[in-house]
Amino acid sequence: MDAVEIESPADPDLAEPVLVEGLPGVGHVGKLAAEHLLEEFETEVVRRVYSEHFPPQVTVEDGRTTLASAAVHAVRDAERDLLVLTGDHQAADGPGNYRLTEAFLDVADAFDVDRVVAMGGVPTGELVDEPDVVGAATADAFLEELEGVGVRFRDDEPAGGIVGISGLLLGLGERRGFEAACLMGETSGYLVDPQSARVVLEALQESLGFEVGYDALSDRAEEMQEVVERIQQMEQGAQPPSDEDLRYIG
Amino acid sequence: MDAVEIESPADPDLAEPVLVEGLPGVGHVGKLAAEHLLEEFETEVVRRVYSEHFPPQVTVEDGRTTLASAAVHAVRDAERDLLVLTGDHQAADGPGNYRLTEAFLDVADAFDVDRVVAMGGVPTGELVDEPDVVGAATADAFLEELEGVGVRFRDDEPAGGIVGISGLLLGLGERRGFEAACLMGETSGYLVDPQSARVVLEALQESLGFEVGYDALSDRAEEMQEVVERIQQMEQGAQPPSDEDLRYIG
Amino acid sequence: MDAVEIESPADPDLAEPVLVEGLPGVGHVGKLAAEHLLEEFETEVVRRVYSEHFPPQVTVEDGRTTLASAAVHAVRDAERDLLVLTGDHQAADGPGNYRLTEAFLDVADAFDVDRVVAMGGVPTGELVDEPDVVGAATADAFLEELEGVGVRFRDDEPAGGIVGISGLLLGLGERRGFEAACLMGETSGYLVDPQSARVVLEALQESLGFEVGYDALSDRAEEMQEVVERIQQMEQGAQPPSDEDLRYIG
Amino acid sequence: MDAVEIESPADPDLAEPVLVEGLPGVGHVGKLAAEHLLEEFETEVVRRVYSEHFPPQVTVEDGRTTLASAAVHAVRDAERDLLVLTGDHQAADGPGNYRLTEAFLDVADAFDVDRVVAMGGVPTGELVDEPDVVGAATADAFLEELEGVGVRFRDDEPAGGIVGISGLLLGLGERRGFEAACLMGETSGYLVDPQSARVVLEALQESLGFEVGYDALSDRAEEMQEVVERIQQMEQGAQPPSDEDLRYIG
Repeated sequence: MDAVEIESPADPDLAEPVLVEGLPGVGHVGKLAAEHLLEEFETEVVRRVYSEHFPPQVTVEDGRTTLASAAVHAVRDAERDLLVLTGDHQAADGPGNYRLTEAFLDVADAFDVDRVVAMGGVPTGELVDEPDVVGAATADAFLEELEGVGVRFRDDEPAGGIVGISGLLLGLGERRGFEAACLMGETSGYLVDPQSARVVLEALQESLGFEVGYDALSDRAEEMQEVVERIQQMEQGAQPPSDEDLRYIG
Repeated sequence: MDAVEIESPADPDLAEPVLVEGLPGVGHVGKLAAEHLLEEFETEVVRRVYSEHFPPQVTVEDGRTTLASAAVHAVRDAERDLLVLTGDHQAADGPGNYRLTEAFLDVADAFDVDRVVAMGGVPTGELVDEPDVVGAATADAFLEELEGVGVRFRDDEPAGGIVGISGLLLGLGERRGFEAACLMGETSGYLVDPQSARVVLEALQESLGFEVGYDALSDRAEEMQEVVERIQQMEQGAQPPSDEDLRYIG
Repeated sequence: MDAVEIESPADPDLAEPVLVEGLPGVGHVGKLAAEHLLEEFETEVVRRVYSEHFPPQVTVEDGRTTLASAAVHAVRDAERDLLVLTGDHQAADGPGNYRLTEAFLDVADAFDVDRVVAMGGVPTGELVDEPDVVGAATADAFLEELEGVGVRFRDDEPAGGIVGISGLLLGLGERRGFEAACLMGETSGYLVDPQSARVVLEALQESLGFEVGYDALSDRAEEMQEVVERIQQMEQGAQPPSDEDLRYIG
Repeated sequence: MDAVEIESPADPDLAEPVLVEGLPGVGHVGKLAAEHLLEEFETEVVRRVYSEHFPPQVTVEDGRTTLASAAVHAVRDAERDLLVLTGDHQAADGPGNYRLTEAFLDVADAFDVDRVVAMGGVPTGELVDEPDVVGAATADAFLEELEGVGVRFRDDEPAGGIVGISGLLLGLGERRGFEAACLMGETSGYLVDPQSARVVLEALQESLGFEVGYDALSDRAEEMQEVVERIQQMEQGAQPPSDEDLRYIG
């Protein structure tokens, strides 16, 4: 296997698709948002990316194994075509993050993408009732457009920059001529956060003009809310949470 | 030396051999099982694999040194020919696990292998009296066949996937057209576990149709049982275990 | 992207420029010193260096992202032309430090540099009122010249050698025929230290003969002095420092 | 710079030299032994090896810097010519240890070496009054020869094998046709141990037939003995050791 290998299970014609990335990260916000898109729309896997820079492992579901990989899914029933990139892993090393990001941008090039949106969370260190969406972009035009749909661009946030493939999609993307932005939902940083994923998707939806329901995310957000309440009760001396509760904690 | 180097001390004709892997891992289950096969059958080393991805070290036995390596042994007196892969190390880095696994699959290709069985342990976090064998496979046919000999395939196990060369033999093996499965004996995760190795071998035996005795493994399992009992006594306030006892603790 | 990539936004004619490096390190002394030069002089970015050996991240300022990189700035209004190298990161791995340093020396070669000065801090473990500048050099002539402007060369300092790109600019620089020295301001090692940066710059100034004001660094040094005093009060039982204070702590 | 670079400052004719390695390790035994040879004999540096696998740093002595490297010194006034390999560092990563060892064996090849002796310490976990020299070898003939000069070859020692460049000189050396052995002085593992270095050299001396004095090592051993006594007193409630004392603790 080469350091990075790209398989092409399908090669549909897409009209100026936007590459939308949601890999694991803070609060699993980006991954939850990407997976919600995959649940709500008809999709097709167009590329699968394998790499020795992913952790050396397979996942197991119902006894069947899947090699660590990332997948790019085509979504054609939104107003504008999307390419949704998700998977179970960031790269396990720094140079791997660079090499995988270049591979994802190669996929974007192959589909004539000119816009890339990375999705993720920005940790606030405390529970957030009504999370904002904080943005960062490679170009002022894109930044202003996103400001128009309520995304906040702040002097000093995110303080530590944007790390991993989300960050490099902007950094390397800009060098290769893509317009790129990152939408980051505020989130505590301690829990899987479907509510934060929802506000990120709402901003994306308004920016790209697609229609999507949020029932599934709302249900998961309510479940998490119950977990949070039980933890808060526990801190005040009540029963410890059951394993069932903790299953939701990322 | 290249990143991975394969030596070929012998090149026997084998009839549709199955590649059976047992490298160090949880409870040393896979390695114990592989070594038991090497003790019970007549074997011949057919390939030796060296790599800068193994730890930079030699082992010493009776003053003689051996460079870190993995070996593939041909077993021809079982009903079906086997290639047993074992050694003292996994790769020391992630990309190394990918590269070594590709090398092992190259060896499998050279002997016209079409089936690969990885052996290992699945940690339960507590002592297990009658360990099950949990399975994972790349293909439904192989999965059903193994279910037929008592291997359990569960929705949610192993929770963290299968890590290291065992996992990649399935993940990369599937991409290269092998049918592959992993047999994992339940084990506490705290101790070297010959009992778990035995149940894995029993499942393998029933699947492949070879005949093997288990006296040596039973003896080691009994020794471990004594160690466990002494530890339990110790926890209840008795004497600490002697160095002799602790020699068995992995 | 190659492992290291060099962009050339400008290619001015410079007269025997000196390469002056100030990347992040102990007390941020080198970086503060380099940034002070960039604030005080007219400068132009002549090279930008990107690498997969930098951390996989972008920084964000006012919502706009910048890929991890180092930049070489031409300074032409000093008595002698300077090339000032700075950035937000050392390499994230050992070989990366070697490869990036070679790239920086390639830039130096392209501009016919023959002298390289690395700037940094040497940790003393305690607060220093009047920091010395400790030096190290590749050649006796350069060493004696710097001794003439008050730089101290000591038998046994810095005890651990010079680590990272500063060290390699001397080590690899010497192998490639550059005369190189490192100027290290004494600093506690616990705090960002503008005062230490100032004494390093004063030594550099006297060595190279440029004129520069220190108002900005003095202001920052006074701010840090206040932080230090508050910490000292705090240790004696007074109020904890506010977040505002801690903003200055590196 | 390539991953490993070899400079050749001299190329003397040597008669069947033995390569003797002493790099930093347990108790600094190997390095102390190698340095003692360099102090006692007339030597000449014949090769200097630089590598991005060494730590990214320079050492500083009297203000002059030296890039991390290893050096091979020719010793011609012993009965048999020696090539003494020493330096301040092992490789900083596993593959680096393999690549550097191959480079050292390339040097050995260039001088028609057929025997390699690695020197080091084997940790006992407690202070040793009269350390044995424990050995390991690639070939029975060499092993028996060393047994003849008092080197102990034990079933189960060293338990963890031999790690780093010493181990690989045997492991990779054997693959390339060298006869190689490792001489390991018993040592606590907690302190720099000149006494252990002396017994290793005495075994080497008897094996190779050279003559060397041990005054310098004896002096250092006595200093260490005083340090040990002070520590023992300290443990029994006496004064803590001064910084001067601790200077000797590795």
